[in-house]
Amino acid sequence: MKDKIKVQVIGATGYGGIGIIDLLSSHPNFQIISLLAKDKFGKTINNFYPHLNNISELMVEEVTQNAIGKDANVIIFTTPDTVAMQMIEPIYERLMKNNIKIIDFSGDFRFKNINDYEEYAQKHPKLNKFQHSAKNLLDKSVYGLPELFKDEIKDARIVGNPGCFAVSMILGIAPLNKLNLIDKTQINIDSTTGTSGAGKSLNEIQHFSNMESNFIPYRALSHQHVTEVKKVASSLGNTIENIHFVPHLINTTRGIMSSIHIELIEKTTKNKLLKIFQDYYRTDYFIRIIDNPPSLKNVRGSNYCDISIDVDEKGKHAVIFSAIDNLMKGQSSNAVQCLNIMYGLNEKTGLERAPLYP
Amino acid sequence: MKDKIKVQVIGATGYGGIGIIDLLSSHPNFQIISLLAKDKFGKTINNFYPHLNNISELMVEEVTQNAIGKDANVIIFTTPDTVAMQMIEPIYERLMKNNIKIIDFSGDFRFKNINDYEEYAQKHPKLNKFQHSAKNLLDKSVYGLPELFKDEIKDARIVGNPGCFAVSMILGIAPLNKLNLIDKTQINIDSTTGTSGAGKSLNEIQHFSNMESNFIPYRALSHQHVTEVKKVASSLGNTIENIHFVPHLINTTRGIMSSIHIELIEKTTKNKLLKIFQDYYRTDYFIRIIDNPPSLKNVRGSNYCDISIDVDEKGKHAVIFSAIDNLMKGQSSNAVQCLNIMYGLNEKTGLERAPLYP
Amino acid sequence: MKDKIKVQVIGATGYGGIGIIDLLSSHPNFQIISLLAKDKFGKTINNFYPHLNNISELMVEEVTQNAIGKDANVIIFTTPDTVAMQMIEPIYERLMKNNIKIIDFSGDFRFKNINDYEEYAQKHPKLNKFQHSAKNLLDKSVYGLPELFKDEIKDARIVGNPGCFAVSMILGIAPLNKLNLIDKTQINIDSTTGTSGAGKSLNEIQHFSNMESNFIPYRALSHQHVTEVKKVASSLGNTIENIHFVPHLINTTRGIMSSIHIELIEKTTKNKLLKIFQDYYRTDYFIRIIDNPPSLKNVRGSNYCDISIDVDEKGKHAVIFSAIDNLMKGQSSNAVQCLNIMYGLNEKTGLERAPLYP
Amino acid sequence: MKDKIKVQVIGATGYGGIGIIDLLSSHPNFQIISLLAKDKFGKTINNFYPHLNNISELMVEEVTQNAIGKDANVIIFTTPDTVAMQMIEPIYERLMKNNIKIIDFSGDFRFKNINDYEEYAQKHPKLNKFQHSAKNLLDKSVYGLPELFKDEIKDARIVGNPGCFAVSMILGIAPLNKLNLIDKTQINIDSTTGTSGAGKSLNEIQHFSNMESNFIPYRALSHQHVTEVKKVASSLGNTIENIHFVPHLINTTRGIMSSIHIELIEKTTKNKLLKIFQDYYRTDYFIRIIDNPPSLKNVRGSNYCDISIDVDEKGKHAVIFSAIDNLMKGQSSNAVQCLNIMYGLNEKTGLERAPLYP
Repeated sequence: MKDKIKVQVIGATGYGGIGIIDLLSSHPNFQIISLLAKDKFGKTINNFYPHLNNISELMVEEVTQNAIGKDANVIIFTTPDTVAMQMIEPIYERLMKNNIKIIDFSGDFRFKNINDYEEYAQKHPKLNKFQHSAKNLLDKSVYGLPELFKDEIKDARIVGNPGCFAVSMILGIAPLNKLNLIDKTQINIDSTTGTSGAGKSLNEIQHFSNMESNFIPYRALSHQHVTEVKKVASSLGNTIENIHFVPHLINTTRGIMSSIHIELIEKTTKNKLLKIFQDYYRTDYFIRIIDNPPSLKNVRGSNYCDISIDVDEKGKHAVIFSAIDNLMKGQSSNAVQCLNIMYGLNEKTGLERAPLYP
Repeated sequence: MKDKIKVQVIGATGYGGIGIIDLLSSHPNFQIISLLAKDKFGKTINNFYPHLNNISELMVEEVTQNAIGKDANVIIFTTPDTVAMQMIEPIYERLMKNNIKIIDFSGDFRFKNINDYEEYAQKHPKLNKFQHSAKNLLDKSVYGLPELFKDEIKDARIVGNPGCFAVSMILGIAPLNKLNLIDKTQINIDSTTGTSGAGKSLNEIQHFSNMESNFIPYRALSHQHVTEVKKVASSLGNTIENIHFVPHLINTTRGIMSSIHIELIEKTTKNKLLKIFQDYYRTDYFIRIIDNPPSLKNVRGSNYCDISIDVDEKGKHAVIFSAIDNLMKGQSSNAVQCLNIMYGLNEKTGLERAPLYP
Repeated sequence: MKDKIKVQVIGATGYGGIGIIDLLSSHPNFQIISLLAKDKFGKTINNFYPHLNNISELMVEEVTQNAIGKDANVIIFTTPDTVAMQMIEPIYERLMKNNIKIIDFSGDFRFKNINDYEEYAQKHPKLNKFQHSAKNLLDKSVYGLPELFKDEIKDARIVGNPGCFAVSMILGIAPLNKLNLIDKTQINIDSTTGTSGAGKSLNEIQHFSNMESNFIPYRALSHQHVTEVKKVASSLGNTIENIHFVPHLINTTRGIMSSIHIELIEKTTKNKLLKIFQDYYRTDYFIRIIDNPPSLKNVRGSNYCDISIDVDEKGKHAVIFSAIDNLMKGQSSNAVQCLNIMYGLNEKTGLERAPLYP
Repeated sequence: MKDKIKVQVIGATGYGGIGIIDLLSSHPNFQIISLLAKDKFGKTINNFYPHLNNISELMVEEVTQNAIGKDANVIIFTTPDTVAMQMIEPIYERLMKNNIKIIDFSGDFRFKNINDYEEYAQKHPKLNKFQHSAKNLLDKSVYGLPELFKDEIKDARIVGNPGCFAVSMILGIAPLNKLNLIDKTQINIDSTTGTSGAGKSLNEIQHFSNMESNFIPYRALSHQHVTEVKKVASSLGNTIENIHFVPHLINTTRGIMSSIHIELIEKTTKNKLLKIFQDYYRTDYFIRIIDNPPSLKNVRGSNYCDISIDVDEKGKHAVIFSAIDNLMKGQSSNAVQCLNIMYGLNEKTGLERAPLYP
């Protein structure tokens, strides 16, 4: 054990936290040395989550300034927006001196540019008019989507783990926008997300008796993840001007399916487009380009992103389907993939589990 | 009982059949006098469907030419495409002589124009190149969507009950297209349907272990219901040129949610659009225009269609949400609403049950 | 409308309340004249429950002593334990003078005997050591299970609507215990309940992400409904000494299935036992004795209780299956059945809807 | 790869097959060298199961006598009853000469004694009056439940992987029967199983529209797994005379919860019983004894069996809860645990994944 890379998890008792704990508990190169939380501490993690009995029985400790980074090589913040920036800012020098790397699950470090962050923050239901408190660290951060930014992640000090919707959308848009094939003025995206995207906090919508057998659109045309998608996708090719995005809540716990409607600049066929996707992701193990539309259950519990595409009979309109597990490729396993890259490991290490089907 | 209008149901053992049986068993003005089926006959209907014990214990009899229409005032065909047209054609004179009205659940009588039917048939996975066998009856048929064609339904001899997806889409598109507010070149629709839309026939996709916790797009950009929507919606205002429609299968039994993306001809606001919907459906009891997005569970088991709309910050892109129970407003209760109108009853008769929530 | 019997609902915003609102909104003989609630008032009921748009748009008003019973012929308390007894006690004389009848959904009036109530209260997780505050009214109350106590309900001033588990268990036990066929010392019952049994209050167990695909036993061998079952079932025949009852929470919203294991006093067969059940419930429309085990979906949304029985090869051990919709026969529609009886109507009035299948 | 132990899977396209493929694809010590099947062959396995894209793309080949055992160290039969016995019998000498070990998922090799097998076969819905065709091999077989028979498994040539219900029941009964604490005459067990227990073959009960939101008892008091439980549990202590077992089908894909009612020989407490379980399973990593009732989701996708116990207030009746994933500890991962033991590995190897929660 002594040679393993030491990981501290802050925000350990949320779904992001237990995702990391699960994955690293059987990872050959990392070990979690401490779990910190703001509220629920003083008990071992399996007290809060009995499915972790035997797997992780680490004590959850109170997060204090001194505790942050203690004995760790890397800190993973699985905390909501603004927590990481506020905790890191005052102690950044110490962290860097100790060569401690950082992965953050929130939107705090997903933008190198303060204007982009502010556009994002304005759309965020809890951040309206919020000022970023660690602006000077933004340009040290890297957007943690390995399929697009592997080289940058390799050397990053701070990785901003992408938003779950954004992962599914960007992976679907990137190959065609890279080649400037998308008529930039109009992308319509309807995404469907499992309930776990909203975390474990209780609310009426997520009450089982309401949500069972249900399907509910929400925050239509105003979700903050769109900013992330526009910035990142535009950075690869043509500037995407509009994305009309509607998230829908589905009666299952895990999974995001994005149905991405694009107008094509020129007439083409399904096979040509599939070929473009295959070429673009040739070396990316976790992207699977498939002939038929993907399904949530075929990626559940895994780091895979399944992508297919269909074209209308006129050859000018296409719909790209992109499916992930929102808690895995949309969150925890994507972070572990980043971790692997940051420490020079094969990106698949510890992530080779098949989707849980059926 | 003797004064009730006499109904014969053909195709009685499918989901469409039991929907009609359920609704008419407690209807004050109709009584089912016979149930006919091609395969499963010789037992009472509650043998096939024990939830109907005590409710309907009518014998299911073999469908024969003589049996069709016997002693009935109205026949409801809950059969797949091509069945009704082939059964009706040879005996149409007899039916008319006996003043027997017809409602058909398939696409056989949804088009007055043979070209439209052929466009539909070509997209239908089971009808490719099929020739309509009762072309001469098409102009006697009426499209059975009461909110749009009440007057025609009142006097119809043959009512083509609409496709389930089509109901949700047309009701969402009609008010704005009536006023020519939709930029006609582009409508993108992502719809989500419960599994019951595919009926009771067994297949691997609908196997519970596959479908649970799953969500699967299918037949993207090529579903036959689009023809119906284009023809009907275009008949009200501008010609709709393209509808890019993707159905998705969701892990619940009942419900259709259509998320209809439109470009608006001129800049507008959510409130103005809501007002248009409210005005358009002012006298339509079963259409509920609401402020927040609808949900499947709020219409389940009822004849309601819940509609809301959202507009982007530029005021030029809108998404209309339209939710129904696919087996009710998308099928059986819509047919009963037609029946009520055909026989001069209040359209709400026998349909006043609340959605089954929670 | 003016001749309808006037109903006041207290506790209108819980699942019990909306169940009554749904059922009475289409009932030919009753009308709801007022909705009272402790917390959520000042808006119309459809603001809290949009599925009730168009169906009931009554204002929810604050419950005050003066408001209770105002202009009403009957009050339905859909409130938790102790509410009804405390509200009724000080104004009982006025209520009786005005000939106002009462139905209560809690355990307050399910026991004529104070000792029985105290045994119940002691097991109730929220009532431990609670003193009944309206003891003198207990002997005026009737246990509201129509199949067993129709005559008493007919003349009752106060009806204690049964506990949902108790309904399913008592209906399963009664016929055999009436004939003293059950070896009294041992009844083991495993029941499974939909989540709606716990109402709409939020908690971690009922969070969708936890409850989906889950199944959880709880309060094993210590649930308060056992007292109700023992008292009522024993009153019909032999004294039932022990019921070992385990409730389980299932990932669906509606339904209770009780699997009741009994030892038989003498060797018998399945057919003989089925015959006993058929005879016992011969005149009870809502009890359906069936050959194969019932299922939750075959009773969902209806007032039916489906019962079957199996016997082991030795003929000495039987398991009785008893299935209801916990919010219907286990709560609201059972109360409407009582109402019908209390006002001399056919007990089926307003309850003739089929189960929502599929 | 060349040093890995070579595994052949027969019956590769069922749920048992893909379970083994999933687990061994990331196992450090085993490699699958061939997949054989009777029906679906001639394509790679990921053609049948797209969730296996990138994970296993082995060709599924036709099972022929020559192909069986070719180049393999161990054969896993994931086939229905009678397949393994009939395939093995004619070539047993060759298999033994080549030192090939066998694990069978069916009931063929779960009984050392032909009488026990025949008692089992008689209750099996598809085996009625079937004669075992490889009787002489029965005494070479070992019951593959590692927690009870680790030493025997270590040296076994043929391992009969236990029935899924049996695993949950035996693990719950063993500790108390070992100490002769169970009043032997009466054990009542209600078990609830996910739909995947019935495999991938289509039938009306398992049609999604029927099974969603449903819960259905079946084959009450006559399931063949009882024989397995009685024989194995009795072999540890007192003879269990009667087990009254009722399986119930639940609307989730994975998981078995057994609620085991026992009468205790002498009065005791919950804590004393928990202590007995903890002692009994002290060295068994995959058995987790817990204070509160287990849940299906806390074991889903893992090899864990979670057990708790409750006692009534008289101290004479107990209910033991035993939860597993029916496709894992109830099937595939249990087989891998046996494999590990058979080849001298740590029993946890390749099985250290946490349950998929939430």
